[in-house]
Amino acid sequence: MSHNIPDIVIGRLPIYLRALTRLMNEGHEVTSSHELGRRLGISSAQIRKDLSHFGGFGKQGTGYQITYLIDQLRQVLKVNREWEVALVGAGDLGSALAHYRGFSDRGFRIACIFDNSPQKVGKQISTFTVQPLNELSNTVEEHNIRIAMIAVPAEKAQEVADLLIQAGVRAILNYAPMNLNVPPDVRVQYIDPVVQLQRMTFYLT
Amino acid sequence: MSHNIPDIVIGRLPIYLRALTRLMNEGHEVTSSHELGRRLGISSAQIRKDLSHFGGFGKQGTGYQITYLIDQLRQVLKVNREWEVALVGAGDLGSALAHYRGFSDRGFRIACIFDNSPQKVGKQISTFTVQPLNELSNTVEEHNIRIAMIAVPAEKAQEVADLLIQAGVRAILNYAPMNLNVPPDVRVQYIDPVVQLQRMTFYLT
Repeated sequence: MSHNIPDIVIGRLPIYLRALTRLMNEGHEVTSSHELGRRLGISSAQIRKDLSHFGGFGKQGTGYQITYLIDQLRQVLKVNREWEVALVGAGDLGSALAHYRGFSDRGFRIACIFDNSPQKVGKQISTFTVQPLNELSNTVEEHNIRIAMIAVPAEKAQEVADLLIQAGVRAILNYAPMNLNVPPDVRVQYIDPVVQLQRMTFYLT
Repeated sequence: MSHNIPDIVIGRLPIYLRALTRLMNEGHEVTSSHELGRRLGISSAQIRKDLSHFGGFGKQGTGYQITYLIDQLRQVLKVNREWEVALVGAGDLGSALAHYRGFSDRGFRIACIFDNSPQKVGKQISTFTVQPLNELSNTVEEHNIRIAMIAVPAEKAQEVADLLIQAGVRAILNYAPMNLNVPPDVRVQYIDPVVQLQRMTFYLT
């Protein structure tokens, strides 16, 4: 299936899932591509087209059953389970991620935290004890962890990525402000607030 | 100019700028679309096409003068100056952002931090004193702040966005896991690690 569907469509599914979960939590049972589109600033035609890749999930004229569509999207995105995530970097950002409570009900659980600084190794952050970087390979392999978040300085990020990939990680969320070189079977997503700010200043007058 | 260039091209310019700055810091003086493309996993043709929107910046066969191209991109993106940024939310994430040192040399400076919690108002975070939310309008207007980052819980984000926009903000980086409704002259970028993780799990086997 993954070979037929444009990645840009896959990228919108988590946004739909988030909006649907919000609608459900607000007490709604049914929604429409128009309602979703209005909330998301996406055309209803686009939403129907995106969902049609997976069969459509709704009957013409009756809208979408929200809990059914949530279940289906969670299945498509493979988050109808809990993925263990390795976190590398126990600085300010790593700590904020370790404390973040928004992962668990959306398919993810941080399982371990690594750092190389003697001041941080052994430290307790939330429910975790920071492990040294030389335990990364063993821990990631033992737990069969496929997903990692990198929150280390830019100059350390490639080295950390190489370690993670060697240990079996195949999906990396990189907070370090630099591009990673990875093999074709590894996916990377980037979070760099400055890149997103600079994309907006272009339009400011 | 902004009306002729696809937003997806604008979105790649900060990535080019970041990679060029890295090349410069590594001591390079000249680069090529091939070198940049290899580092970024983008085709050299794409890079040349993107830059051609702005005149090209390079002569056929001689490559790009890195410092010149950096200057030009900073000018296009309007980050050849320092923008003051308002930060709303002084929790774990807000604190990490307040401590982050990667803003200043890339065009941004956090100027003020707001929170509504009595435990946080008046607290010192980095060099800032957390201000109450009811001072937001005055402070943002006085400083003529056009850019803000929202790091509050999802259920408070729309209300905070409305306040910011009313005070003159026209670009919002939203860390709250929800979509914002904003007028057409306001730009929003989103950072939600779970959305980016879910986009990758689809591909994991």
